[in-house]
Amino acid sequence: MKLAVPKEIWPGEKRVAVTPETVKKLKALGFDVAIEAGAGIDAAIPDDRFVDAGATIAKTMKTTVKDADVIFKVRPPVIDGKTNELTAYKKGAAVVALLEPYDRKDLIEAMAKAGVDGYSMELMPRISRAQSMDVLSSQSNLAGYRAVLDAAHEFGRIYPMMMTAAGTLAPARVVVVGAGVAGLQAIATAKRLGAVVSAFDVRPAVKEQVQSLGGTFIEVEDDTASDAETSGGYAKEMSDDYKKKQAEKLKEVLTKTDIVITTALIPGRPAPEIVTADMVAGMKPGSVIIDLAAERGGNVAGVKLGETVMTDNGVKLIGPANITSSVATDATAMYAKNLLNFITLSVDKDKGTLSFNGEDQIIAETRLTHDGKVVHPKFGGEEVANG
Amino acid sequence: MKLAVPKEIWPGEKRVAVTPETVKKLKALGFDVAIEAGAGIDAAIPDDRFVDAGATIAKTMKTTVKDADVIFKVRPPVIDGKTNELTAYKKGAAVVALLEPYDRKDLIEAMAKAGVDGYSMELMPRISRAQSMDVLSSQSNLAGYRAVLDAAHEFGRIYPMMMTAAGTLAPARVVVVGAGVAGLQAIATAKRLGAVVSAFDVRPAVKEQVQSLGGTFIEVEDDTASDAETSGGYAKEMSDDYKKKQAEKLKEVLTKTDIVITTALIPGRPAPEIVTADMVAGMKPGSVIIDLAAERGGNVAGVKLGETVMTDNGVKLIGPANITSSVATDATAMYAKNLLNFITLSVDKDKGTLSFNGEDQIIAETRLTHDGKVVHPKFGGEEVANG
Repeated sequence: MKLAVPKEIWPGEKRVAVTPETVKKLKALGFDVAIEAGAGIDAAIPDDRFVDAGATIAKTMKTTVKDADVIFKVRPPVIDGKTNELTAYKKGAAVVALLEPYDRKDLIEAMAKAGVDGYSMELMPRISRAQSMDVLSSQSNLAGYRAVLDAAHEFGRIYPMMMTAAGTLAPARVVVVGAGVAGLQAIATAKRLGAVVSAFDVRPAVKEQVQSLGGTFIEVEDDTASDAETSGGYAKEMSDDYKKKQAEKLKEVLTKTDIVITTALIPGRPAPEIVTADMVAGMKPGSVIIDLAAERGGNVAGVKLGETVMTDNGVKLIGPANITSSVATDATAMYAKNLLNFITLSVDKDKGTLSFNGEDQIIAETRLTHDGKVVHPKFGGEEVANG
Repeated sequence: MKLAVPKEIWPGEKRVAVTPETVKKLKALGFDVAIEAGAGIDAAIPDDRFVDAGATIAKTMKTTVKDADVIFKVRPPVIDGKTNELTAYKKGAAVVALLEPYDRKDLIEAMAKAGVDGYSMELMPRISRAQSMDVLSSQSNLAGYRAVLDAAHEFGRIYPMMMTAAGTLAPARVVVVGAGVAGLQAIATAKRLGAVVSAFDVRPAVKEQVQSLGGTFIEVEDDTASDAETSGGYAKEMSDDYKKKQAEKLKEVLTKTDIVITTALIPGRPAPEIVTADMVAGMKPGSVIIDLAAERGGNVAGVKLGETVMTDNGVKLIGPANITSSVATDATAMYAKNLLNFITLSVDKDKGTLSFNGEDQIIAETRLTHDGKVVHPKFGGEEVANG
């Protein structure tokens, strides 16, 4: 069995899909591991550390993936006018990556056509058996941490209260919108740094989690709020009435807020706009907003992906692109373990064989293409294929 | 009495010497306060907030300082081929600022020649009565906080230990060199963020302070160590034998360290080189060093002021220039209060008069020039002038 890890070529992507630690474990499962030269360098993993762990280093993407049964990636294979990485893959190969299925119908069809089986890590079911493979959680966790640090970097004040001989500096006031994995980690990190933290979420169920981290839960009185969570634990889109009440409350809170971190995502939909231009205009000069939903269109009016926008009233709007690459070493460590755990499921270690069981919920819900066909019912497949 | 605050023109300087809060108090002391337009903008203080506090806004530096009895600044008045700010000051005016007396003999002489009395805030005696005027402490405190945040920003990992479904991330290991005000705040901030922190200092007296913040004190066995502190609480330069022992110990520690923050300064001398090229070469790829002594030549071999240098073995060396300007709003708040407290000492509020008492230790030790002469004995003055 051969497992290949090409170098990521997406602009700004610093993560890689394996670490020396997971290479050792993949070897123990029976894989030969080939890694493209320099694949780990941006995550502070030089090639020789991969070699020490038992991998071979290949010079190009093509030689890396040649004859591989499994290809581990972070970003989707590139298919554009110039490049079609899929043509380098063996027919029947499995590619395991963040395949962006909601946005990349073209890629799903191209994978089917190339006879490549695509496993989309975004679609990992939120069941306890799959927790150790949950890439969205592991990466969101780091994004939440990093958002607080990035805000601190742009903020002209400090987070903690400081009492000195020359007087007292008040603690920063932080509001987190969306208390999912990223939001909860943002709350925890801002609290660690001494900020006063409040959080907004449409799901009343997370109130206790927010409070257990020392945050204040900002409540919007509304009857529909109790029905705001999908079975997967994500937030649903809310009623217009709820949104209006939320907006009024949020506007008032933000006039006294220094740092806002927004994390509100609805799977397969553009991110909802929650912080309006009007709310931003009511904030103090020097305030900072980090919009972690910027890659999905943003939660904040005026945010631009990958840019820092200074508003007329002196508020910095930041829309990070690929924030986990700013903590590439740890993001890689988590991502690589998630993928190791995922592939372990389909390896018979004694026989040294690979077989994806289409009846397993984890395989069925992540597999987009199989045997030259689109198989995922949500993305154009007619049925969940077996075997 | 007129007090003037020109806009800082030093490149990258974002602080300003007053806040709306201190303007109110200066007014209450009897000052008319004139501020140059836009002086507070980089510290997130728009002109209208100064006006609301009772200041008048002047269009240029010259109109701001015209006829002023006191000029508050952050950086020294600019005197170079093109500009001589001193010529705009009234004869007999007092300029209160960071005047860099150890490096700026030219400025001291120019102030004497211009008949301007220079009060150098770096020279504030470390006595309890002067604590609330101690600019070096208030700014170092913020520099120590910010160094930890800047390191986090450049570090490809996170500070805290994180235990997740996909495994555990180890906490970052931070070493702080020099446990003065900046070093202690760096220790406290890194601990807040969940790092494992150790500290080095030549003064054994600070061991308890390091430990009280949750840091480990790295000890160097040496007889001369007990004599390492000046009466002002600063570190002395150490013996060669001590330096050798320190170097051996530090080299060993740094091989296991992720983040290094150096803060070692000796007043009036270049900063001592403590972290050698050899030590840096022994560190792990991805490590980050922030050298807070970079403005005084640096504690770390290879550091360049205002730049980020990546070494051959993947260590980032950062030599921040003017780090407190990255937290300009809070740095301004502290600095402005320090200056307010300093000037309060010399105001007779009832009479509305200003008189600097040369017999007061605080005035005697900070005053460089008076009545057209250099008066500070350490900087070329023959005697401490009275009156």
